[in-house]
Amino acid sequence: MEINYIPEAVIRRLPGYYRYLERLEKAGEVRISSAKMSQDLGLNASQIRRDLNYFGGFGQQGYGYSVEGLKGEIAHILGLDRRYNAVIMGAGNIGRALMGYNRFASMGFDIVGVFDNNLQKIDGSGVQNVSRLLELAEVMDIQIGMICTSPCSAQETADLLVNIGVKGIWNFTSVSLDVPEDIPVQNVNLNDSLFELCFRMNNLNAKITESETI
Amino acid sequence: MEINYIPEAVIRRLPGYYRYLERLEKAGEVRISSAKMSQDLGLNASQIRRDLNYFGGFGQQGYGYSVEGLKGEIAHILGLDRRYNAVIMGAGNIGRALMGYNRFASMGFDIVGVFDNNLQKIDGSGVQNVSRLLELAEVMDIQIGMICTSPCSAQETADLLVNIGVKGIWNFTSVSLDVPEDIPVQNVNLNDSLFELCFRMNNLNAKITESETI
Repeated sequence: MEINYIPEAVIRRLPGYYRYLERLEKAGEVRISSAKMSQDLGLNASQIRRDLNYFGGFGQQGYGYSVEGLKGEIAHILGLDRRYNAVIMGAGNIGRALMGYNRFASMGFDIVGVFDNNLQKIDGSGVQNVSRLLELAEVMDIQIGMICTSPCSAQETADLLVNIGVKGIWNFTSVSLDVPEDIPVQNVNLNDSLFELCFRMNNLNAKITESETI
Repeated sequence: MEINYIPEAVIRRLPGYYRYLERLEKAGEVRISSAKMSQDLGLNASQIRRDLNYFGGFGQQGYGYSVEGLKGEIAHILGLDRRYNAVIMGAGNIGRALMGYNRFASMGFDIVGVFDNNLQKIDGSGVQNVSRLLELAEVMDIQIGMICTSPCSAQETADLLVNIGVKGIWNFTSVSLDVPEDIPVQNVNLNDSLFELCFRMNNLNAKITESETI
Protein backbone atom coordinates (compact mmCIF):
# COMPACT_ATOMS: atom_id res chain seq x y z
CA MET A 1 0.00 0.00 0.00
CA GLU A 2 1.36 3.37 -0.96
CA ILE A 3 1.97 5.67 1.96
CA ASN A 4 1.26 9.36 1.51
CA TYR A 5 2.77 11.78 3.97
CA ILE A 6 0.45 14.69 4.64
CA PRO A 7 1.09 17.46 7.17
CA GLU A 8 -1.53 17.63 9.88
CA ALA A 9 -1.92 21.37 9.21
CA VAL A 10 -2.97 20.65 5.62
CA ILE A 11 -5.73 18.36 6.83
CA ARG A 12 -6.86 20.96 9.33
CA ARG A 13 -7.19 23.48 6.50
CA LEU A 14 -9.21 21.22 4.17
CA PRO A 15 -12.56 21.65 5.99
CA GLY A 16 -12.09 25.43 5.79
CA TYR A 17 -11.57 25.20 2.02
CA TYR A 18 -14.68 23.06 1.78
CA ARG A 19 -16.84 25.50 3.78
CA TYR A 20 -15.49 28.39 1.74
CA LEU A 21 -16.29 26.71 -1.58
CA GLU A 22 -19.74 25.77 -0.31
CA ARG A 23 -20.38 29.44 0.46
CA LEU A 24 -19.14 30.51 -2.98
CA GLU A 25 -21.34 27.94 -4.66
CA LYS A 26 -24.40 29.15 -2.74
CA ALA A 27 -23.53 32.69 -3.85
CA GLY A 28 -23.58 31.48 -7.45
CA GLU A 29 -19.84 31.72 -8.10
CA VAL A 30 -18.57 29.44 -10.86
CA ARG A 31 -14.81 29.99 -10.90
CA ILE A 32 -12.37 31.17 -8.25
CA SER A 33 -8.79 32.33 -8.71
CA SER A 34 -6.21 31.22 -6.18
CA ALA A 35 -5.45 34.93 -5.63
CA LYS A 36 -9.03 35.68 -4.57
CA MET A 37 -9.18 32.50 -2.53
CA SER A 38 -5.97 33.41 -0.76
CA GLN A 39 -7.25 36.90 0.00
CA ASP A 40 -10.57 35.64 1.37
CA LEU A 41 -9.00 32.91 3.46
CA GLY A 42 -6.00 34.89 4.66
CA LEU A 43 -3.56 32.25 3.38
CA ASN A 44 -0.98 32.86 0.72
CA ALA A 45 -1.72 31.52 -2.73
CA SER A 46 1.31 29.23 -2.91
CA GLN A 47 0.24 27.65 0.40
CA ILE A 48 -3.19 26.85 -1.04
CA ARG A 49 -1.66 25.41 -4.21
CA ARG A 50 0.76 23.34 -2.14
CA ASP A 51 -2.06 22.05 0.07
CA LEU A 52 -4.15 20.99 -2.93
CA ASN A 53 -1.14 19.43 -4.64
CA TYR A 54 -1.03 16.80 -1.90
CA PHE A 55 -4.19 15.47 -3.51
CA GLY A 56 -3.33 16.03 -7.14
CA GLY A 57 -3.84 19.72 -7.87
CA PHE A 58 -7.14 20.41 -9.72
CA GLY A 59 -6.40 23.94 -10.97
CA GLN A 60 -5.61 25.21 -14.43
CA GLN A 61 -2.80 27.73 -14.69
CA GLY A 62 -4.16 31.25 -15.09
CA TYR A 63 -7.72 30.05 -15.16
CA GLY A 64 -8.41 29.36 -11.52
CA TYR A 65 -10.51 26.59 -10.06
CA SER A 66 -14.03 25.50 -10.88
CA VAL A 67 -15.97 26.13 -7.64
CA GLU A 68 -18.22 23.12 -8.07
CA GLY A 69 -15.36 20.92 -9.26
CA LEU A 70 -12.98 21.83 -6.48
CA LYS A 71 -15.70 21.54 -3.85
CA GLY A 72 -16.52 18.08 -5.18
CA GLU A 73 -12.86 17.05 -5.12
CA ILE A 74 -12.40 18.26 -1.55
CA ALA A 75 -15.66 16.59 -0.51
CA HIS A 76 -14.30 13.39 -2.00
CA ILE A 77 -10.93 13.77 -0.23
CA LEU A 78 -12.69 14.40 3.09
CA GLY A 79 -15.10 11.54 2.46
CA LEU A 80 -18.11 13.85 2.46
CA ASP A 81 -19.50 12.42 -0.78
CA ARG A 82 -21.14 9.58 1.14
CA ARG A 83 -23.34 9.17 4.23
CA TYR A 84 -22.45 7.88 7.68
CA ASN A 85 -24.51 6.32 10.45
CA ALA A 86 -23.45 7.61 13.84
CA VAL A 87 -24.35 6.98 17.46
CA ILE A 88 -24.01 9.38 20.37
CA MET A 89 -22.69 7.67 23.50
CA GLY A 90 -23.61 9.55 26.67
CA ALA A 91 -26.52 11.94 27.04
CA GLY A 92 -24.88 14.53 29.28
CA ASN A 93 -24.27 18.18 28.39
CA ILE A 94 -22.32 17.55 25.20
CA GLY A 95 -24.33 14.50 24.13
CA ARG A 96 -27.53 16.52 24.38
CA ALA A 97 -25.98 19.43 22.50
CA LEU A 98 -25.11 17.02 19.67
CA MET A 99 -28.63 15.53 19.81
CA GLY A 100 -30.04 19.02 19.35
CA TYR A 101 -27.77 19.93 16.46
CA ASN A 102 -29.95 19.88 13.40
CA ARG A 103 -27.32 20.11 10.66
CA PHE A 104 -25.80 16.64 10.92
CA ALA A 105 -28.22 15.10 8.42
CA SER A 106 -27.63 17.79 5.80
CA MET A 107 -23.88 17.20 6.15
CA GLY A 108 -24.31 13.46 5.58
CA PHE A 109 -24.36 12.16 9.16
CA ASP A 110 -27.41 10.24 10.34
CA ILE A 111 -27.63 9.99 14.11
CA VAL A 112 -29.21 6.56 14.44
CA GLY A 113 -29.13 6.29 18.23
CA VAL A 114 -28.24 7.97 21.51
CA PHE A 115 -27.19 5.73 24.39
CA ASP A 116 -26.54 6.13 28.08
CA ASN A 117 -26.03 3.78 31.00
CA ASN A 118 -27.79 6.08 33.44
CA LEU A 119 -31.43 5.02 33.63
CA GLN A 120 -32.43 8.52 34.70
CA LYS A 121 -31.33 9.83 31.32
CA ILE A 122 -33.53 7.38 29.44
CA ASP A 123 -36.52 9.63 29.59
CA GLY A 124 -38.51 9.52 26.39
CA SER A 125 -36.31 12.02 24.57
CA GLY A 126 -34.85 9.22 22.46
CA VAL A 127 -32.01 8.17 24.74
CA GLN A 128 -31.73 4.39 24.96
CA ASN A 129 -30.09 2.03 27.39
CA VAL A 130 -26.57 1.29 26.22
CA SER A 131 -27.40 -2.43 26.48
CA ARG A 132 -29.51 -1.97 23.34
CA LEU A 133 -26.59 -0.83 21.19
CA LEU A 134 -25.77 -4.39 20.11
CA GLU A 135 -29.31 -4.93 18.80
CA LEU A 136 -29.09 -1.75 16.75
CA ALA A 137 -25.64 -2.69 15.44
CA GLU A 138 -27.03 -6.00 14.19
CA VAL A 139 -29.53 -4.35 11.90
CA MET A 140 -27.58 -1.25 10.95
CA ASP A 141 -24.02 -0.42 9.95
CA ILE A 142 -22.74 2.10 12.45
CA GLN A 143 -19.64 3.85 11.15
CA ILE A 144 -19.05 6.59 13.71
CA GLY A 145 -19.25 6.59 17.50
CA MET A 146 -19.36 9.95 19.27
CA ILE A 147 -18.14 9.52 22.85
CA CYS A 148 -19.64 12.08 25.24
CA THR A 149 -19.52 9.97 28.39
CA SER A 150 -17.76 10.76 31.65
CA PRO A 151 -14.01 10.17 31.45
CA CYS A 152 -14.24 7.01 33.54
CA SER A 153 -16.61 5.34 31.02
CA ALA A 154 -14.74 6.52 27.94
CA GLN A 155 -12.39 3.56 27.33
CA GLU A 156 -15.11 1.01 28.03
CA THR A 157 -17.36 2.83 25.56
CA ALA A 158 -14.59 2.89 22.98
CA ASP A 159 -14.11 -0.89 23.40
CA LEU A 160 -17.83 -1.41 22.85
CA LEU A 161 -17.79 0.75 19.73
CA VAL A 162 -14.80 -1.14 18.35
CA ASN A 163 -16.68 -4.39 19.01
CA ILE A 164 -19.68 -3.31 16.99
CA GLY A 165 -17.38 -2.35 14.14
CA VAL A 166 -17.32 1.44 14.01
CA LYS A 167 -14.77 2.88 11.59
CA GLY A 168 -14.00 6.06 13.53
CA ILE A 169 -14.48 7.68 16.91
CA TRP A 170 -15.23 11.32 17.73
CA ASN A 171 -14.02 11.66 21.30
CA PHE A 172 -15.26 14.52 23.47
CA THR A 173 -13.65 13.22 26.66
CA SER A 174 -10.12 14.11 27.75
CA VAL A 175 -9.15 10.41 27.81
CA SER A 176 -6.51 9.13 25.36
CA LEU A 177 -8.38 6.17 23.98
CA ASP A 178 -6.66 2.89 23.23
CA VAL A 179 -8.17 1.47 20.03
CA PRO A 180 -6.86 -0.55 17.05
CA GLU A 181 -4.66 1.43 14.68
CA ASP A 182 -7.10 1.32 11.80
CA ILE A 183 -9.79 3.14 13.79
CA PRO A 184 -9.00 6.85 13.85
CA VAL A 185 -9.93 8.82 16.95
CA GLN A 186 -10.61 12.52 16.55
CA ASN A 187 -10.32 14.27 19.90
CA VAL A 188 -12.25 17.40 20.79
CA ASN A 189 -10.79 18.66 24.01
CA LEU A 190 -12.71 21.77 24.94
CA ASN A 191 -10.68 22.36 28.12
CA ASP A 192 -7.48 22.37 26.07
CA SER A 193 -9.01 24.83 23.65
CA LEU A 194 -9.95 27.17 26.51
CA PHE A 195 -6.45 26.83 27.97
CA GLU A 196 -4.99 27.73 24.58
CA LEU A 197 -7.16 30.86 24.53
CA CYS A 198 -5.77 31.78 27.96
CA PHE A 199 -2.24 31.26 26.71
CA ARG A 200 -2.87 33.62 23.83
CA MET A 201 -4.55 36.23 26.07
CA ASN A 202 -1.53 36.14 28.38
CA ASN A 203 1.13 36.06 25.67
CA LEU A 204 0.04 38.72 23.23
CA ASN A 205 3.65 39.30 22.24
CA ALA A 206 4.19 35.65 21.30
CA LYS A 207 4.24 35.23 17.56
CA ILE A 208 2.61 31.90 16.89
CA THR A 209 3.74 30.23 13.69
CA GLU A 210 2.41 27.17 11.93
CA SER A 211 5.92 25.94 11.26
CA GLU A 212 7.61 23.61 13.73
CA THR A 213 11.05 24.72 12.62
CA ILE A 214 11.85 28.35 13.25
CA MET B 1 8.44 44.48 23.17
CA GLU B 2 10.34 41.26 22.59
CA ILE B 3 8.71 38.96 20.08
CA ASN B 4 8.89 35.24 20.73
CA TYR B 5 8.21 32.86 17.88
CA ILE B 6 6.40 29.77 19.10
CA PRO B 7 5.12 26.99 16.86
CA GLU B 8 1.38 26.52 17.08
CA ALA B 9 1.92 22.78 17.68
CA VAL B 10 3.90 23.55 20.85
CA ILE B 11 1.02 25.58 22.23
CA ARG B 12 -1.41 22.82 21.36
CA ARG B 13 0.71 20.37 23.36
CA LEU B 14 0.99 22.54 26.50
CA PRO B 15 -2.53 21.81 27.83
CA GLY B 16 -1.79 18.10 27.48
CA TYR B 17 1.38 18.49 29.54
CA TYR B 18 -0.62 20.39 32.13
CA ARG B 19 -3.34 17.73 32.37
CA TYR B 20 -0.70 15.01 32.58
CA LEU B 21 1.16 16.74 35.42
CA GLU B 22 -2.12 17.40 37.23
CA ARG B 23 -2.85 13.66 37.08
CA LEU B 24 0.66 12.80 38.34
CA GLU B 25 0.29 15.25 41.20
CA LYS B 26 -3.05 13.75 42.22
CA ALA B 27 -1.39 10.33 42.16
CA GLY B 28 1.22 11.63 44.60
CA GLU B 29 4.16 11.71 42.18
CA VAL B 30 6.90 14.17 43.10
CA ARG B 31 9.40 13.89 40.26
CA ILE B 32 9.09 12.82 36.64
CA SER B 33 11.84 11.96 34.19
CA SER B 34 11.52 13.15 30.64
CA ALA B 35 11.88 9.50 29.57
CA LYS B 36 8.79 8.45 31.56
CA MET B 37 6.91 11.54 30.46
CA SER B 38 7.75 10.80 26.84
CA GLN B 39 6.60 7.20 27.20
CA ASP B 40 3.30 8.17 28.85
CA LEU B 41 2.53 10.94 26.38
CA GLY B 42 3.75 9.14 23.26
CA LEU B 43 6.09 11.99 22.34
CA ASN B 44 9.82 11.69 22.10
CA ALA B 45 11.85 13.09 24.97
CA SER B 46 13.78 15.59 22.88
CA GLN B 47 10.48 16.96 21.59
CA ILE B 48 9.28 17.56 25.15
CA ARG B 49 12.57 19.22 26.11
CA ARG B 50 12.41 21.39 22.99
CA ASP B 51 8.82 22.39 23.74
CA LEU B 52 9.63 23.41 27.30
CA ASN B 53 12.76 25.24 26.20
CA TYR B 54 10.56 27.78 24.42
CA PHE B 55 9.64 28.93 27.90
CA GLY B 56 12.99 28.54 29.61
CA GLY B 57 13.48 24.86 30.33
CA PHE B 58 12.81 24.01 34.01
CA GLY B 59 14.45 20.56 34.14
CA GLN B 60 17.69 19.52 35.75
CA GLN B 61 19.90 17.21 33.71
CA GLY B 62 19.61 13.61 34.89
CA TYR B 63 17.25 14.54 37.66
CA GLY B 64 13.98 15.05 35.83
CA TYR B 65 11.31 17.58 36.57
CA SER B 66 9.56 18.45 39.81
CA VAL B 67 5.91 17.57 39.13
CA GLU B 68 4.53 20.40 41.24
CA GLY B 69 7.13 22.85 39.95
CA LEU B 70 6.66 22.04 36.27
CA LYS B 71 2.88 22.02 36.62
CA GLY B 72 3.09 25.45 38.24
CA GLU B 73 5.34 26.76 35.47
CA ILE B 74 3.02 25.47 32.74
CA ALA B 75 -0.01 26.84 34.59
CA HIS B 76 1.76 30.19 34.64
CA ILE B 77 2.63 30.00 30.93
CA LEU B 78 -0.96 29.13 30.08
CA GLY B 79 -2.27 31.83 32.42
CA LEU B 80 -4.06 29.29 34.60
CA ASP B 81 -2.61 30.72 37.82
CA ARG B 82 -5.34 33.37 37.92
CA ARG B 83 -9.13 33.48 37.58
CA TYR B 84 -11.28 34.72 34.70
CA ASN B 85 -14.82 36.03 34.51
CA ALA B 86 -16.60 34.72 31.45
CA VAL B 87 -19.98 35.16 29.79
CA ILE B 88 -21.78 32.70 27.55
CA MET B 89 -23.43 34.39 24.58
CA GLY B 90 -26.27 32.33 23.13
CA ALA B 91 -28.28 29.73 25.02
CA GLY B 92 -28.71 27.20 22.23
CA ASN B 93 -27.36 23.65 22.21
CA ILE B 94 -23.73 24.51 22.83
CA GLY B 95 -24.44 27.43 25.16
CA ARG B 96 -26.55 25.17 27.35
CA ALA B 97 -23.90 22.46 27.31
CA LEU B 98 -21.38 25.02 28.57
CA MET B 99 -23.89 26.24 31.21
CA GLY B 100 -24.20 22.68 32.45
CA TYR B 101 -20.47 22.03 32.56
CA ASN B 102 -19.55 22.03 36.23
CA ARG B 103 -15.77 22.08 36.01
CA PHE B 104 -15.23 25.65 34.80
CA ALA B 105 -15.01 27.08 38.32
CA SER B 106 -12.45 24.53 39.49
CA MET B 107 -10.32 25.39 36.44
CA GLY B 108 -10.47 29.10 37.27
CA PHE B 109 -13.30 30.26 35.02
CA ASP B 110 -16.33 31.91 36.63
CA ILE B 111 -19.34 32.02 34.35
CA VAL B 112 -20.89 35.30 35.47
CA GLY B 113 -23.72 35.46 32.94
CA VAL B 114 -25.49 33.74 30.08
CA PHE B 115 -27.16 35.95 27.49
CA ASP B 116 -29.50 35.48 24.56
CA ASN B 117 -31.57 37.75 22.36
CA ASN B 118 -34.39 35.26 22.03
CA LEU B 119 -36.94 36.03 24.70
CA GLN B 120 -38.15 32.42 24.62
CA LYS B 121 -34.78 31.31 25.93
CA ILE B 122 -34.96 33.66 28.91
CA ASP B 123 -36.84 31.18 30.98
CA GLY B 124 -35.72 31.25 34.58
CA SER B 125 -32.73 28.98 34.01
CA GLY B 126 -30.41 31.95 34.41
CA VAL B 127 -30.37 33.14 30.79
CA GLN B 128 -30.64 36.93 30.59
CA ASN B 129 -31.59 39.31 27.84
CA VAL B 130 -28.48 40.37 25.96
CA SER B 131 -29.47 44.00 26.58
CA ARG B 132 -28.44 43.49 30.21
CA LEU B 133 -24.83 42.64 29.33
CA LEU B 134 -23.77 46.29 29.54
CA GLU B 135 -25.09 46.60 33.11
CA LEU B 136 -23.16 43.52 34.15
CA ALA B 137 -20.02 44.76 32.43
CA GLU B 138 -20.23 48.01 34.41
CA VAL B 139 -19.97 46.23 37.73
CA MET B 140 -17.77 43.33 36.78
CA ASP B 141 -14.65 42.82 34.71
CA ILE B 142 -15.51 40.30 32.01
CA GLN B 143 -12.38 38.84 30.46
CA ILE B 144 -13.74 36.07 28.25
CA GLY B 145 -16.73 35.93 25.93
CA MET B 146 -17.90 32.51 24.74
CA ILE B 147 -19.85 32.90 21.49
CA CYS B 148 -22.43 30.16 20.97
CA THR B 149 -24.91 32.16 18.89
CA SER B 150 -26.16 31.40 15.42
CA PRO B 151 -23.62 32.26 12.72
CA CYS B 152 -25.60 35.32 11.65
CA SER B 153 -25.35 36.88 15.13
CA ALA B 154 -21.71 35.97 15.67
CA GLN B 155 -19.95 39.12 14.40
CA GLU B 156 -22.44 41.43 16.10
CA THR B 157 -21.90 39.53 19.35
CA ALA B 158 -18.14 39.78 18.95
CA ASP B 159 -18.43 43.56 18.43
CA LEU B 160 -20.47 43.82 21.62
CA LEU B 161 -17.92 41.77 23.56
CA VAL B 162 -15.08 43.93 22.25
CA ASN B 163 -17.04 47.01 23.36
CA ILE B 164 -17.37 45.78 26.92
CA GLY B 165 -13.65 45.09 27.01
CA VAL B 166 -13.23 41.33 26.92
CA LYS B 167 -9.64 40.16 26.50
CA GLY B 168 -10.37 36.99 24.56
CA ILE B 169 -13.13 35.22 22.65
CA TRP B 170 -13.95 31.50 22.57
CA ASN B 171 -15.84 31.14 19.30
CA PHE B 172 -18.07 28.10 18.72
CA THR B 173 -19.53 29.42 15.48
CA SER B 174 -18.00 28.76 12.06
CA VAL B 175 -17.69 32.51 11.41
CA SER B 176 -14.22 34.07 11.05
CA LEU B 177 -14.61 36.94 13.48
CA ASP B 178 -13.17 40.35 12.78
CA VAL B 179 -11.84 41.77 16.06
CA PRO B 180 -8.89 43.98 17.07
CA GLU B 181 -5.51 42.26 16.89
CA ASP B 182 -4.94 42.27 20.63
CA ILE B 183 -8.05 40.20 21.31
CA PRO B 184 -7.31 36.57 20.52
CA VAL B 185 -10.10 34.43 19.13
CA GLN B 186 -9.95 30.70 19.78
CA ASN B 187 -12.17 28.86 17.32
CA VAL B 188 -13.87 25.57 18.09
CA ASN B 189 -15.27 24.31 14.85
CA LEU B 190 -17.00 21.04 15.57
CA ASN B 191 -18.02 20.49 11.95
CA ASP B 192 -14.39 20.79 10.86
CA SER B 193 -13.37 18.30 13.51
CA LEU B 194 -15.97 15.79 12.29
CA PHE B 195 -14.82 16.36 8.69
CA GLU B 196 -11.25 15.67 9.77
CA LEU B 197 -12.39 12.40 11.33
CA CYS B 198 -14.00 11.46 8.02
CA PHE B 199 -10.81 12.30 6.18
CA ARG B 200 -8.85 9.99 8.45
CA MET B 201 -11.45 7.20 8.16
CA ASN B 202 -11.25 7.43 4.37
CA ASN B 203 -7.48 7.80 4.13
CA LEU B 204 -6.14 5.16 6.45
CA ASN B 205 -3.01 4.88 4.35
CA ALA B 206 -2.22 8.58 4.68
CA LYS B 207 0.62 9.13 7.10
CA ILE B 208 -0.17 12.35 8.89
CA THR B 209 2.86 14.20 10.16
CA GLU B 210 3.09 17.22 12.44
CA SER B 211 5.77 18.71 10.25
CA GLU B 212 4.83 21.08 7.44
CA THR B 213 7.97 20.28 5.49
CA ILE B 214 8.26 16.71 4.32
